[in-house]
Amino acid sequence: MARFFVDALPAAGERFVLTGENAEHAKVLRLRPGESVTLCDGAGTDCPCTVAEGLTLTAGPSLPCAAEPNAAVSLWLAFPKADKAEHVIQKATELGAAELVFFPSRYCVSRPEGKALDKKLERWQKIARSAAEQSGRGVIPTVRAAASFHDALRQAAEADLPILFYENEEQYSLREAIGSLPVPCAGKVRISLMTGAEGGFSAEEITQARNAGLRICTLGPRILRCETAPLAGLTAVLYALGAMD
Amino acid sequence: MARFFVDALPAAGERFVLTGENAEHAKVLRLRPGESVTLCDGAGTDCPCTVAEGLTLTAGPSLPCAAEPNAAVSLWLAFPKADKAEHVIQKATELGAAELVFFPSRYCVSRPEGKALDKKLERWQKIARSAAEQSGRGVIPTVRAAASFHDALRQAAEADLPILFYENEEQYSLREAIGSLPVPCAGKVRISLMTGAEGGFSAEEITQARNAGLRICTLGPRILRCETAPLAGLTAVLYALGAMD
Repeated sequence: MARFFVDALPAAGERFVLTGENAEHAKVLRLRPGESVTLCDGAGTDCPCTVAEGLTLTAGPSLPCAAEPNAAVSLWLAFPKADKAEHVIQKATELGAAELVFFPSRYCVSRPEGKALDKKLERWQKIARSAAEQSGRGVIPTVRAAASFHDALRQAAEADLPILFYENEEQYSLREAIGSLPVPCAGKVRISLMTGAEGGFSAEEITQARNAGLRICTLGPRILRCETAPLAGLTAVLYALGAMD
Repeated sequence: MARFFVDALPAAGERFVLTGENAEHAKVLRLRPGESVTLCDGAGTDCPCTVAEGLTLTAGPSLPCAAEPNAAVSLWLAFPKADKAEHVIQKATELGAAELVFFPSRYCVSRPEGKALDKKLERWQKIARSAAEQSGRGVIPTVRAAASFHDALRQAAEADLPILFYENEEQYSLREAIGSLPVPCAGKVRISLMTGAEGGFSAEEITQARNAGLRICTLGPRILRCETAPLAGLTAVLYALGAMD
């Protein structure tokens, strides 16, 4: 079923007219009168509608989006090269990430700043929006950047469970980290998953992360690429918390 | 540490000379005398070696590769479009798949056959080899094709736990399917994970799969793309079985 993110949802029984990019998208889909579509406020609430005519919909009663996971998982990613960021944003949105935050780290080759970064973030946010529509998400993940590794650590550490995946960690597993969460959690549990760029993290960065309160975890004995690790970590966390059942 | 797949491992104390593609790769890496490298037979056994001089190594005692998961997970994939197959092969190899088998299904757009398929499979097998080297795998996953959907179902069903992920299945979860495995399993448990092409499976294909003995599972309420679903399923299975600890 087609899905459109809108600024504000109509009340039940109201008419609603698709505009802007949503109107363009609707034209491509060739919606027909009587067809069901969903409006979504991007904050977890859906409004099922029926196409009345052209771009005009009749709204039904709103309800919580059933596709949102029971955990708010933020991905914290050292800037990767080229189109890897786009790949991770698209896949992480499908899988159920709440937010993606990019940051510079010691071994980053790419370090966009200023207008170049603004332009990238704008493009990346569109990718998240499009992936959210296609995968039936009720929330569009926010895509943003932290100014420094230090800032990223400080913000990521505010989660209920902040984790950094490190290829040289061999003991402490994601299972142990998740096992340390209180059961039941009060409200939606917030989890941060931090991963490195192509060159990984320096030993000093790992010490800084540990001091900031992040748990240094392994993702198993196989070496994962910088675009594979965040998606593997996200999938494992969502599976562990029952959000893929 | 550099890793080379070879046809036969040397005995401890023997000299071994890298040849062919391995020699090319070693030259790029600029190996130095005294450096540690690993030879691997591609069947799960590693042989740690020391560079003696140039392309000549001195072999240590062989041992089982510690990076191999405790389950043999085969991915069964309806032929996807364009470069999605290459993406899945690379990522699935990193994550720990044992085998990738492509097959034609009703909604496949791409249906390579004959020499075109042979060429693709040759290329795809090289991608698996390269990803296995880089991720530290002890086994190179086999990449092959099944002649028909029927053949794929019959072969996939031979596993201890054959699963098909279907977006219209809302009840039966991967957790339930994995919970049905005997504990402890005798030997390495064999799991088949089947996923569709861009257009998914037809209702008739789902009935055929169920009759062939496959469990029809959900991967959660979000709609995953055809290249995301097999990797998400593989990750969740490996996490569930402790192969990412």
